[in-house]
Amino acid sequence: MSHSAPDHLLERMLFFSDAVFAIAITLLIIEVHVPEIPPGSAPGVYLHALLELLPAFFGYVLSFLVIARFWITHHSAFAHAPPFDAKLLWPNVQLLMSIAFMPFATAFMARNIGAMVPALVYFLVLMVASLLSVRMVRKATLLGDAAALHGVEGLAMLRTRGLSIFFAAALAFALGFFVPQISPAALATAPLWLYLLKRRAQARKG
Amino acid sequence: MSHSAPDHLLERMLFFSDAVFAIAITLLIIEVHVPEIPPGSAPGVYLHALLELLPAFFGYVLSFLVIARFWITHHSAFAHAPPFDAKLLWPNVQLLMSIAFMPFATAFMARNIGAMVPALVYFLVLMVASLLSVRMVRKATLLGDAAALHGVEGLAMLRTRGLSIFFAAALAFALGFFVPQISPAALATAPLWLYLLKRRAQARKG
Amino acid sequence: MSHSAPDHLLERMLFFSDAVFAIAITLLIIEVHVPEIPPGSAPGVYLHALLELLPAFFGYVLSFLVIARFWITHHSAFAHAPPFDAKLLWPNVQLLMSIAFMPFATAFMARNIGAMVPALVYFLVLMVASLLSVRMVRKATLLGDAAALHGVEGLAMLRTRGLSIFFAAALAFALGFFVPQISPAALATAPLWLYLLKRRAQARKG
Amino acid sequence: MSHSAPDHLLERMLFFSDAVFAIAITLLIIEVHVPEIPPGSAPGVYLHALLELLPAFFGYVLSFLVIARFWITHHSAFAHAPPFDAKLLWPNVQLLMSIAFMPFATAFMARNIGAMVPALVYFLVLMVASLLSVRMVRKATLLGDAAALHGVEGLAMLRTRGLSIFFAAALAFALGFFVPQISPAALATAPLWLYLLKRRAQARKG
Repeated sequence: MSHSAPDHLLERMLFFSDAVFAIAITLLIIEVHVPEIPPGSAPGVYLHALLELLPAFFGYVLSFLVIARFWITHHSAFAHAPPFDAKLLWPNVQLLMSIAFMPFATAFMARNIGAMVPALVYFLVLMVASLLSVRMVRKATLLGDAAALHGVEGLAMLRTRGLSIFFAAALAFALGFFVPQISPAALATAPLWLYLLKRRAQARKG
Repeated sequence: MSHSAPDHLLERMLFFSDAVFAIAITLLIIEVHVPEIPPGSAPGVYLHALLELLPAFFGYVLSFLVIARFWITHHSAFAHAPPFDAKLLWPNVQLLMSIAFMPFATAFMARNIGAMVPALVYFLVLMVASLLSVRMVRKATLLGDAAALHGVEGLAMLRTRGLSIFFAAALAFALGFFVPQISPAALATAPLWLYLLKRRAQARKG
Repeated sequence: MSHSAPDHLLERMLFFSDAVFAIAITLLIIEVHVPEIPPGSAPGVYLHALLELLPAFFGYVLSFLVIARFWITHHSAFAHAPPFDAKLLWPNVQLLMSIAFMPFATAFMARNIGAMVPALVYFLVLMVASLLSVRMVRKATLLGDAAALHGVEGLAMLRTRGLSIFFAAALAFALGFFVPQISPAALATAPLWLYLLKRRAQARKG
Repeated sequence: MSHSAPDHLLERMLFFSDAVFAIAITLLIIEVHVPEIPPGSAPGVYLHALLELLPAFFGYVLSFLVIARFWITHHSAFAHAPPFDAKLLWPNVQLLMSIAFMPFATAFMARNIGAMVPALVYFLVLMVASLLSVRMVRKATLLGDAAALHGVEGLAMLRTRGLSIFFAAALAFALGFFVPQISPAALATAPLWLYLLKRRAQARKG
């Protein structure tokens, strides 16, 4: 299974995208502020400071996985090395704009853990990013012969799988109005939505 | 339409440039500071804090689009994969220096929204960056056979289109002296200037 | 000794990884805060401020070497340009998550130099990162023909050498409970563990 | 003049280096802090704030040019696409460590403009970086056939030209003890040292 190399115009666009994804994902740690602790404090003071950082660590891990997921989707979308089309550029910029916004949304939610508005903002950014990602996958796979690499069914799934994050984020958004404290847990339903999307695709085919 | 690959010396220069563009565009979010809100505040307090961040969000979106536009122009300028010439290096460094300055100019304007001096500084940086970008496009397209890829007319437009941002920023700069509050809106005239540049090119030809 | 080029899917994954390594390693300097010194202070005041930054400089150098070591291991793991396998993606994301965490762990330890808990956190992150790195090397070298490039013995060493950092960090972790002030010195035992791993490999073979 | 492509192991090392150079150069702007100005202040207040930032702008421009110069030297050193050698890795890491340190040294000098110790630290970092750069150029050009691309004389100059920055920084360092305020100006003597190095090379040959 040899993949043809992307031409240099596409390669540069992917390169630029990879760099933005990589910077956004690595900047997440900047928002985890090192606690100020008086020298000579007892170990318990340090442990307590770490405990207070738990929401920040949670935000770091969650958003790291989320951005990685979007990057992997982007990676798959261009796996068949489609010919370059200038029409890809601005939709890609819009996707990257939502990704680069994640460090802010993450820190806003993590520092106000349990609060409604910051949680809603975070889920909203996720919903926007997932829609922009789904659009990008469609645009990328309409160019060139994506089915040759992914197969017809694989391609159909690649095009819709991004919706699983959208549904999970939308559920979290709805829950956020009532129980913001546990609403992030709704993001864990993403695999369930993915399963349902797969079932639906098979039902259509059968 | 197959594009020849750039040689490795040009590729490294483009790579370095892409990285600087990508970092500058992603650093924009760092200047959107997460508001400090006392735990247990009412949702209205959070919404109000978001409202106060509107200028910061506006600056983020505006500069994201601006830097993306400069990157796309850089991408087009080297689309024909010209042979590497060491004379490209320093003009490119100067362009990158103006791009990497954008996060500061953006934050200075956004945190002082409506004030004259920060707006003027922002527009000035834009004017400088667009002139450096136009110069870069000319230098890049003088090497190799750019017309083969873009056509004679397309090449002429590629070389002048960067001026549309210069004109829009210059208009905003002039307006900034009188009505700094609305001067950024003048940047929206960029497509108009682009249209006029196209008209003039066609008039010349006809 | 010509190396085959990695296919574009692997190349993009390596590219993304390199970017995260590069950002994490360069962000280390951000955690070395520039001291605030009243203008017109005597030279001794500046020297004293630098002296107080010694732990920060130490953390910078230590973590720069550590991240560079992990990057070089990653570089070696993919030196034979294995075919791309999507199963590499998430283990790689996990490794990068531990690497991107280093700037926090470094600053936490350096600003609380000599304290037990921050030192233990730092060593723990190192232990996790080294295990994730060892796993990554194994996964990468199971694909394609790594032995052709490294030789059977070289490959065996490449797969286990990451454990030398794990052992050194584990020793530092154990020491950290008793003498946190000098526990980082235990990291210098990494070459010793590497030597022992080599001896053991040779004994097995003989 | 077609350049052979570097093999993928060298390419990855160059890529990683480019990313570190690009991040260090773009992070410089982070150290230019946006001034806090009360809303509704007169334009003169903003101008005054910009005036107070002059040392920060100076540091930004100076270090941008310096890092760009080191990057261009790195670019030239590998222009002949030498075969990869693992012995390049650690000397390269050391060079990058000095480059990534520049944002700190720049901010320390710029915020204490005119003070002796911060100026000396800056020049010292420059001296170290230039020596590490000269060493890197030598190691890179000893591999493969650098003379074929650069010519014998061009190669000799490429190997010594980095010393011009060392001499300029050393002069600035010496001046810094007596007149720290104007010592940075000594960096402008770099072209002079380059000229002298060229003269000496020609005298040797004649």
